[in-house]
Amino acid sequence: MNMSQYRFSSRFHLLASVFVTIFTVCICSVANAANPLASWNEGPARKAIVEFVAAVTDQNSKDYVAPAERIAVFDNDGTLWVEYPMYTQFLFAFDRVKKLAPQHPEWKTKQPFKAVLEGDMKTVGASGMKGLMEIMMATHSGMTAAEFEQDASNWLAMTKQSRFKRQYTELVYQPQLELLAYLRANGFKTYIVSGGGIQFMRPMSEETYGIPRDQVVGSSVVSEFQVKDGKPALVRMPKIDFVNDKAGKPVGIYEHIGRRPILAFGNSDSDMQMIEYTMAGEGRRMGLFVHHTDADREYAYDRKSHVGTLDKALDQADANGWFIVDMKQDWKAVFSEK
Amino acid sequence: MNMSQYRFSSRFHLLASVFVTIFTVCICSVANAANPLASWNEGPARKAIVEFVAAVTDQNSKDYVAPAERIAVFDNDGTLWVEYPMYTQFLFAFDRVKKLAPQHPEWKTKQPFKAVLEGDMKTVGASGMKGLMEIMMATHSGMTAAEFEQDASNWLAMTKQSRFKRQYTELVYQPQLELLAYLRANGFKTYIVSGGGIQFMRPMSEETYGIPRDQVVGSSVVSEFQVKDGKPALVRMPKIDFVNDKAGKPVGIYEHIGRRPILAFGNSDSDMQMIEYTMAGEGRRMGLFVHHTDADREYAYDRKSHVGTLDKALDQADANGWFIVDMKQDWKAVFSEK
Repeated sequence: MNMSQYRFSSRFHLLASVFVTIFTVCICSVANAANPLASWNEGPARKAIVEFVAAVTDQNSKDYVAPAERIAVFDNDGTLWVEYPMYTQFLFAFDRVKKLAPQHPEWKTKQPFKAVLEGDMKTVGASGMKGLMEIMMATHSGMTAAEFEQDASNWLAMTKQSRFKRQYTELVYQPQLELLAYLRANGFKTYIVSGGGIQFMRPMSEETYGIPRDQVVGSSVVSEFQVKDGKPALVRMPKIDFVNDKAGKPVGIYEHIGRRPILAFGNSDSDMQMIEYTMAGEGRRMGLFVHHTDADREYAYDRKSHVGTLDKALDQADANGWFIVDMKQDWKAVFSEK
Repeated sequence: MNMSQYRFSSRFHLLASVFVTIFTVCICSVANAANPLASWNEGPARKAIVEFVAAVTDQNSKDYVAPAERIAVFDNDGTLWVEYPMYTQFLFAFDRVKKLAPQHPEWKTKQPFKAVLEGDMKTVGASGMKGLMEIMMATHSGMTAAEFEQDASNWLAMTKQSRFKRQYTELVYQPQLELLAYLRANGFKTYIVSGGGIQFMRPMSEETYGIPRDQVVGSSVVSEFQVKDGKPALVRMPKIDFVNDKAGKPVGIYEHIGRRPILAFGNSDSDMQMIEYTMAGEGRRMGLFVHHTDADREYAYDRKSHVGTLDKALDQADANGWFIVDMKQDWKAVFSEK
């Protein structure tokens, strides 16, 4: 092959690969456009979602909702990512107790820290909300905002979930990623409204869910603006500022979003108030719960669970027009193949 | 003129008007594109703003900032709209005291309410922050979120400013509207970060400033989720939740935005911490203060004012690299002609 032949051939290959790429991209786009909820099985939940979105986006529909009012809120733990056998942020806190232990010799004999250091989860659990709050305060305060963000990000990057041996940010539900994207493609603004720490979730929310930091609503500790060594910084204090759970969720929505959602998605009784608040507005509304029914692909738990208890909401769903999304029945895939 | 002539003529006129419209739209677009800060005089402030925006948006600049990090925060009172002779929200509160007086006969003899009812602003002022907070609590709580929003919106629609005889939403600074639009056109996300009430500002922020509700950060009262007569609602309680002023502003930014701004614009010493926090980040930053120097077109006040005191910030501006925007010198127009 002489030089000009080589050039031609090389150019041809370049062109060919460009065409193949364009063609492939088109195919994928068409496929996604044709089935944006590919990981949802045909069934009542998927059908109801598609009908709801069609109704509120059709300008000729009596249910039409202007784009600015298309607010969709999602709980995080158990709704967007795995919460079983333990809330991710608690595991982060337990690991921080171990990391910080050398600076706290008193923890060797002081509960519930002693139990965390000994891996005695039963005693940690028995310490109740008071004990857990002590652990959260000891591990989530006393540093600057930037330091905390770095710690949380490092931990998420380094830690794998016990059963699936994958990072927590990989254990997000593929059907929910598709639903978030589908809602956004239909003019919705998507928010996380979680009992989890607002600053724990923010560093991962954009990359993982496509949800920007300022669209994350969560629990918080009091922060103070301080000038340290001539450098202004925000310092996290050992004091609860706001608990964005149960009746706190509608309050968090009011403070951060300033609009009543038209769609709310949770997975436990702690999401009931958020969904009640959403459904109580005028016009068409939608409230949904993930029901963890799939021990093979994820976990099966509901009424008597130590995380994400789904009990009262199961009983009241029909009467209130809430949708129970059955993980086993309604989701074709649970996690992305990666 | 016969029918076909008429049709031709009619069509010609239609076409002509379409062309004129297109042409006019083009001219305006070109004019705006050529001078997006038309109400800013050529001078150091305008020059610095344009240079800053060029530097952080140029991918080849060492100062380049990715779009997601282009956060710009603006104080509201005295920075985006008129705050003299009294903060708008205080006037709203005083008017509400008068409106609610029939349900509170005790106010006839109880200060500072008595003074408000008698229009004795000197005594109201002398009641200090404690007195003003009492007035704010009595007028900003005890109703649902929806009722408060309706009251605030009605008041803003019905009330005219004492000197200019225009609604407060018309007394916004035209150069700042242009700056907000210019920043957004350059990929910035613009926020209000004000000592004013978050829920007082939100109903007007989108229409007035193009700033959506969830990009408004402000002071708040505690709200509670309650089910009243079977209907879930948020009820505003007579208790301060958060004061988004002075050292509170960086905290409000942390909680609501979750990112350190790269540009902050205020007008008083109460904005210093927000601007210090902004400037303390890495990379190129910009901090600005409006200096009210224009008694003819607006007001002239600074070091010894009862609203928007600009004193320490004036002294420290040069050393800190803050820009003082001189209303009289730097702004070609103050308000829109409408």
